Amino acid sequence: MIADFSIFPIGKGESLSGYVAEAYKIIEGSGLPHEHHAMGTSIEGDWDEVMGVIKACRDRLLEMSDRVSISIRIDDRKGRSGELVRKVESAKGKM
Amino acid sequence: MIADFSIFPIGKGESLSGYVAEAYKIIEGSGLPHEHHAMGTSIEGDWDEVMGVIKACRDRLLEMSDRVSISIRIDDRKGRSGELVRKVESAKGKM
Amino acid sequence: MIADFSIFPIGKGESLSGYVAEAYKIIEGSGLPHEHHAMGTSIEGDWDEVMGVIKACRDRLLEMSDRVSISIRIDDRKGRSGELVRKVESAKGKM
Amino acid sequence: MIADFSIFPIGKGESLSGYVAEAYKIIEGSGLPHEHHAMGTSIEGDWDEVMGVIKACRDRLLEMSDRVSISIRIDDRKGRSGELVRKVESAKGKM
Repeated sequence: MIADFSIFPIGKGESLSGYVAEAYKIIEGSGLPHEHHAMGTSIEGDWDEVMGVIKACRDRLLEMSDRVSISIRIDDRKGRSGELVRKVESAKGKM
Repeated sequence: MIADFSIFPIGKGESLSGYVAEAYKIIEGSGLPHEHHAMGTSIEGDWDEVMGVIKACRDRLLEMSDRVSISIRIDDRKGRSGELVRKVESAKGKM
Repeated sequence: MIADFSIFPIGKGESLSGYVAEAYKIIEGSGLPHEHHAMGTSIEGDWDEVMGVIKACRDRLLEMSDRVSISIRIDDRKGRSGELVRKVESAKGKM
Repeated sequence: MIADFSIFPIGKGESLSGYVAEAYKIIEGSGLPHEHHAMGTSIEGDWDEVMGVIKACRDRLLEMSDRVSISIRIDDRKGRSGELVRKVESAKGKM
């Protein structure tokens, strides 16, 4: 499955990039295939792997703040992997 | 924390209420505080409890279909509970 | 169509209910069918009506802050109305 | 502002790439800065420009199907532009 998520603290000011950097470290340390973009990060793996990464990001941000907002969009397709790259290519191939 | 989520299969036709009913059974069986609304369900509990319910809904829908879409919006506030009811009241009290 | 949305300022502290109250005033002033819940509000209407309400909430919050986060989940079904109430009932009827 | 969105029809089968391709054509025809990724597309512009593109994608998909699901995540920051590229760089610079 792929989960695309964004996470940030509420109540720690308007600049969020330092918090996003903390999440990036955890995501990159996970070894899972991922893609950062302006509005979040997509990660591919099985449910427990992916949700484990998101939980670790949330645990880290709750050490640094008292309130955290998370938005997650999941596409879970049985028996598929390698979709992180293939999905955009597949749509472009049909344009 | 509170997670608000919607879940449905892709590729099983336009009518989704039968699948939503399956999710409702799991949510209600969990015993966690929850509120169904037209566009999803809000559940309150700790991370593992709430994510366990969402995973169980996903597992059930993957038995019935090959592709599942999930959208989750989380508000995680340290040391708070009973927010499912209080949040709307708190905003209304400031109108 | 139904749009479920949440909106809040980033960088104005941890308490958000005063801002949510401002959004509620606009939503309730719109006259569109709506339902507030702990994690957002669902509104029913046509695209321009519903998006007009969300834009008005965003304009109001940008008067009060410099950065606003919005999350929107839309279910747009041709030729349907009255879904705000019917969707939950329909799923409950199939449990 | 930046809006990240995903859009697809419900009830037209499990394969969605042909529909995503239709959305890509509209997005690319808009001339607005954008970035496709596996789980959606981020677009930068002012509210009416960006929402006009999303509405055009929705109108196209409602020509091809009867039910459309849309998920939108917005970061609206006063007086900012060029954020589509800068946001990832800014977080990476703080790792």
